[in-house]
Amino acid sequence: MPHIPISPDLPGIRGAMVFRPETARPLNDLVEILLTGPSTLTKGERELIATYVSSRNCTHFCASIHGAIAAAHLGGDEALVKQVKTDFTQAAISPKLKALLVIAGKVQQDGKLVTAADVDAARREGATDLEIHDTVLIAAAFCMYNRYVDGLATHQPEDEVLYRERGRRVARDGYVAVSAEYLPAGH
Amino acid sequence: MPHIPISPDLPGIRGAMVFRPETARPLNDLVEILLTGPSTLTKGERELIATYVSSRNCTHFCASIHGAIAAAHLGGDEALVKQVKTDFTQAAISPKLKALLVIAGKVQQDGKLVTAADVDAARREGATDLEIHDTVLIAAAFCMYNRYVDGLATHQPEDEVLYRERGRRVARDGYVAVSAEYLPAGH
Repeated sequence: MPHIPISPDLPGIRGAMVFRPETARPLNDLVEILLTGPSTLTKGERELIATYVSSRNCTHFCASIHGAIAAAHLGGDEALVKQVKTDFTQAAISPKLKALLVIAGKVQQDGKLVTAADVDAARREGATDLEIHDTVLIAAAFCMYNRYVDGLATHQPEDEVLYRERGRRVARDGYVAVSAEYLPAGH
Repeated sequence: MPHIPISPDLPGIRGAMVFRPETARPLNDLVEILLTGPSTLTKGERELIATYVSSRNCTHFCASIHGAIAAAHLGGDEALVKQVKTDFTQAAISPKLKALLVIAGKVQQDGKLVTAADVDAARREGATDLEIHDTVLIAAAFCMYNRYVDGLATHQPEDEVLYRERGRRVARDGYVAVSAEYLPAGH
């Protein structure tokens, strides 16, 4: 049961955002820019970084919904998403994304673990400064979103169909547009 | 040395924000609402939560600047800030804030560690649902800011005077106003 009065109809971060729409706005703006804004990383790649970090933090809601959004961007390839969660070194993703996931995994533990050698390895695979920056900030941001969802003990459904359907909609319309359906007007 | 080209004149999160002003805006909006917006927690109390979490994450820049802002809000009482960092159970703060710091400390590790008993203990000391929500989100958000600052290996000066002076200005003018001095116009 959630620690504060949150509607059971709104699982995960959605209930928390309705409880506090003032903070929902920058939280949505941040994820919208990082995961859907202009970038040389594809939307699928960025969602895989978010999924990987959420999976390492064991936050079922975030790992499931971002995994579903990633799959929607990747032609429905749920097996690839699962492989990234389990062992990305064996996944059919680019060497650049693998090097960025190494950085994301270290940020998930502690930002100070990221070494110059990790960053050089990503650069050798073609990563730009902006891609390195965004990888660090996506990983850091999901350490926030995951703790927010878990720390309030929000409802995190098990039903995969729910995530798959919603994942397709967020992949198509974006975070701010979909959240406008349940947030009060003006937020 | 920072992992990406960041001006050494802008320590900590400031250099990272100049590098990527698009994400700086929601990052500043979030901290402004959480730490300076309308709340039944004082600005000093909220800054102490941010300071405590940053200190536990060993992020020198964030622990120092938010400690300095907290002290500025608390009549310059730097000894109190130091005591909260070292052992808040012995600090001259309210029982309510102590109960909220227990929650913040658990969120810093893993949101799933927060128990109904922790939340009940805070309620018994007078904490409201909104105060509990904001404590969880402040703690979660600083797990992001700390990882962002550390993960890019930003410059984190040792000079206490620098933090003290800047802390007074942020306490007086707020985050968005002070960041407008170094961010490009419109961000």
